[in-house]
Amino acid sequence: MFSDVEKAHLIVQKYAHRTPVLTSSSINTIVGGKLFFKCENLQKVGAFKFRGACNAVFSLSEDDAQKGVATHSSGNHAAALALAAKMRGVAAHIVMPDNSPEIKKKAVAGYGANITFCEPTLQARESTLAKVIDETDATEIHPYNNFFVIAGQGTAAKELIEDYGEFDVIIAPVGGGGLLSGTAISTKHFLPDCKVIAAEPAGADDAFRSFYEKKIIPSVQPKTIADGLLTSLGERNFSIIMEKVDDIVTVSEEKIVEAMRMIWERMKIIIEPSSAVPLAAILEGKIDIQDKKVGIILSGGNLDLGKLPF
Amino acid sequence: MFSDVEKAHLIVQKYAHRTPVLTSSSINTIVGGKLFFKCENLQKVGAFKFRGACNAVFSLSEDDAQKGVATHSSGNHAAALALAAKMRGVAAHIVMPDNSPEIKKKAVAGYGANITFCEPTLQARESTLAKVIDETDATEIHPYNNFFVIAGQGTAAKELIEDYGEFDVIIAPVGGGGLLSGTAISTKHFLPDCKVIAAEPAGADDAFRSFYEKKIIPSVQPKTIADGLLTSLGERNFSIIMEKVDDIVTVSEEKIVEAMRMIWERMKIIIEPSSAVPLAAILEGKIDIQDKKVGIILSGGNLDLGKLPF
Repeated sequence: MFSDVEKAHLIVQKYAHRTPVLTSSSINTIVGGKLFFKCENLQKVGAFKFRGACNAVFSLSEDDAQKGVATHSSGNHAAALALAAKMRGVAAHIVMPDNSPEIKKKAVAGYGANITFCEPTLQARESTLAKVIDETDATEIHPYNNFFVIAGQGTAAKELIEDYGEFDVIIAPVGGGGLLSGTAISTKHFLPDCKVIAAEPAGADDAFRSFYEKKIIPSVQPKTIADGLLTSLGERNFSIIMEKVDDIVTVSEEKIVEAMRMIWERMKIIIEPSSAVPLAAILEGKIDIQDKKVGIILSGGNLDLGKLPF
Repeated sequence: MFSDVEKAHLIVQKYAHRTPVLTSSSINTIVGGKLFFKCENLQKVGAFKFRGACNAVFSLSEDDAQKGVATHSSGNHAAALALAAKMRGVAAHIVMPDNSPEIKKKAVAGYGANITFCEPTLQARESTLAKVIDETDATEIHPYNNFFVIAGQGTAAKELIEDYGEFDVIIAPVGGGGLLSGTAISTKHFLPDCKVIAAEPAGADDAFRSFYEKKIIPSVQPKTIADGLLTSLGERNFSIIMEKVDDIVTVSEEKIVEAMRMIWERMKIIIEPSSAVPLAAILEGKIDIQDKKVGIILSGGNLDLGKLPF
């Protein structure tokens, strides 16, 4: 499986930024460990999602690519797929719920995608996507339940470890599980003894419950400011997570906002709430990082600057 | 003079971050050139000022260092000097106007400096500082009119050029002229044909007027959101600027805010208004960068998140 990440990296490194890794002495002093933040908020389209989308689009055969790609997404995956398709010169068909944030609609439209709006229900999204695929014969690129996407997301941890060596712990947020499963594959390949831990909002704790009940528990009416972490785990992601992830912990909304503000103020970078969840878990004492070297994947930086939670 | 920057770099690289250089395809498309942003907002204390302070503090003899360092500053230099002194294990005596932003007072206090508050006038700042120096025998480290500080600030452009090669234009904001004079020394050393251009708010255009009238015109009642650029040029800075800088241009407040928001939204980094002034000058058509490779020094990222101009 790690060979898939290696193959993905050959593609991803041609099109994506090798994002910087930042540290903050003042945050290290507060938490008592050494944190290394892999800044996927500084990735193209402002999120790690570009890695997976890029690998999926550029791994298609020429024939398939010419028919275009399709997905339903209200978030970063839509923009990522649209940009990756644009870079390959093929069509992207994106089904978006009509209540998607304006900033995301604009971003996707800006990359030249064909957008079809639908009602904001999973059913409407899936049936609309099926119709679009029926009409276009485009290849569906699922935002996380897709091995090319998983391998692409794994390149972030690969770069982090290549650039900064050994770690005791690597932490990622978990929503559908694309980033987490990719991170686990890369980390356990290079550093079998490094713990891979996921952090999840308590208000959207389906991955936490799935992990401990050893079966996928769907996300039902999740409530969290971390709007990138609302979805249920994919099957492919779940099986990798059960095999390679050491723990999943949950955090309060209050700590997510506190961690987000801490990163904004002390590191001078813009992260979306989902990105703050791993640091929130540390601040809440859910992960022991005393005197440890810790990698944290900051997943993205897309949010409405007019609606900050502080 | 460049040998001073080289010496400074031997010190600075031990204590400061080698800050990342970021690019944005979407901003490049908007402006029609290739911009490389040297992110001093991601520097320690959130500003390039740490480079100069660090060089000045660590260049002192052991005897002088033991007596401590002193300055008056309401801004980033105060925090930078406090941290550099802390790193060398010597005292920092900082005179701050009592109306300084809370965030800056806290930062300086957090680095363990001895703070003396005074009335917010230049006269009170200078007389209070004179008293502090009289009592402590500390060495005054001026925020910009100091050759060690200038050489330290020049290490940012040195790194930019070392990491990214040739440039057609390098742009820095100008306040007291420390960053600008250091940038000009490094740039003209490596790339004699590269233009060095300074951008300044029209509401604080003393450097612009000084440059064209060929004598220092003091800054009188400047009015701009770019609060790092309010001061008058130092004599040492002015003479370097007259020798090595190609042009100084001014920009409107409106464009500063527009450029600031563009960098926040598209690059996902937090910059203070002063940092946005070079991009504002490009957006306002004051600097020709069509099809050119352009370096921009983002000077800092310290501002009150509760008082954004958008």
